Amino acid sequence: MQRMLTEIRIAGFGGQGVILAAAVIGKAAAIFQGGYATMTQSFGPEARGGSSSAQVILSNEPILYPYVAQPDVLVVMSQEACTRFVPQLRPGGILITEQELVRVDQYPTGTRVYGVPATRLAEELGRKVVLNIVMVGFFGAVTKLLDRDSLRSAVADSVPPAMQKLNLEAFDKGFEYGSQLLVRLSENGDQEPVALESA
Amino acid sequence: MQRMLTEIRIAGFGGQGVILAAAVIGKAAAIFQGGYATMTQSFGPEARGGSSSAQVILSNEPILYPYVAQPDVLVVMSQEACTRFVPQLRPGGILITEQELVRVDQYPTGTRVYGVPATRLAEELGRKVVLNIVMVGFFGAVTKLLDRDSLRSAVADSVPPAMQKLNLEAFDKGFEYGSQLLVRLSENGDQEPVALESA
Repeated sequence: MQRMLTEIRIAGFGGQGVILAAAVIGKAAAIFQGGYATMTQSFGPEARGGSSSAQVILSNEPILYPYVAQPDVLVVMSQEACTRFVPQLRPGGILITEQELVRVDQYPTGTRVYGVPATRLAEELGRKVVLNIVMVGFFGAVTKLLDRDSLRSAVADSVPPAMQKLNLEAFDKGFEYGSQLLVRLSENGDQEPVALESA
Repeated sequence: MQRMLTEIRIAGFGGQGVILAAAVIGKAAAIFQGGYATMTQSFGPEARGGSSSAQVILSNEPILYPYVAQPDVLVVMSQEACTRFVPQLRPGGILITEQELVRVDQYPTGTRVYGVPATRLAEELGRKVVLNIVMVGFFGAVTKLLDRDSLRSAVADSVPPAMQKLNLEAFDKGFEYGSQLLVRLSENGDQEPVALESA
């Protein structure tokens, strides 16, 4: 069996729910889809300055050394996070942005860039705080790395019962936005993303 | 400046708040004490079975490779976690147990073992769910790795405002229990732990 390893970096401000988004993706892969995942959060000077970032590694085998540092997928919810992490993105990787908070001015060759107004979509649900789960839904639709149902189950499993309905709505809203974006890109002749494979 | 690296492994059942405990320790070191920390959570077959574990690495320098896998300090809140992780403990390391849930029958040479009835202490506060923060307080007192105030600030920073009072009480309860245990051990002629240093 071929080894598959996918690195995802999620970054933004403290308070945007970066860590929960990362944990949802890790859980979806490992608990609901039979794979393996690690989630690593670094605390340091950036954290003292209010930035937050997490790395998720997905694999079809146990992960012995959870360190890659060249993300296949980068999800950024702040300009600072974008500026800091885009240079690390693997050529041909996927860059996902909160498009009303982030302006992308440069990226590695072949990067596929997808933007979503996650904060505004969350506000439409009445709770800005679920922007992170909108991002997870959008991530699911455009990367196709994980099953929609696995991600949805991981969302439900990661929030308190009283918050499940809101968070599932946020997930669905992000997912639908992403699916429709792919349809529009496809109609324009752009190629849609395929699952990533790398060693 | 000498490099200092300390690995802490926290493990138990899902639902015991293992990840929050790990994040509190990482934040205390990095955000409130000027150091660096990483927190890594693995999702895999164990997570599907209801186990939960996290690794925290503390350092006085940026951590490039967050992988050591021979904990200096192991905190276990379930028998399964104890059985699984005790063989990895560094000789001369510290083993901290939820003493009413874990029976320790073997450990590496020179291990210092400290038990706390964290679930019962949490129940005395009316909320069993804060047993993880009782463990963090106890951890702080017996390891002396981090300042009490840094840990306390990290607890306050990691829970919703409405839960702060309860969690700070849980922290103090665990810390006091640990401090008193050290006094009793000292009166019995046992040596108390010193800060760990290793490369």
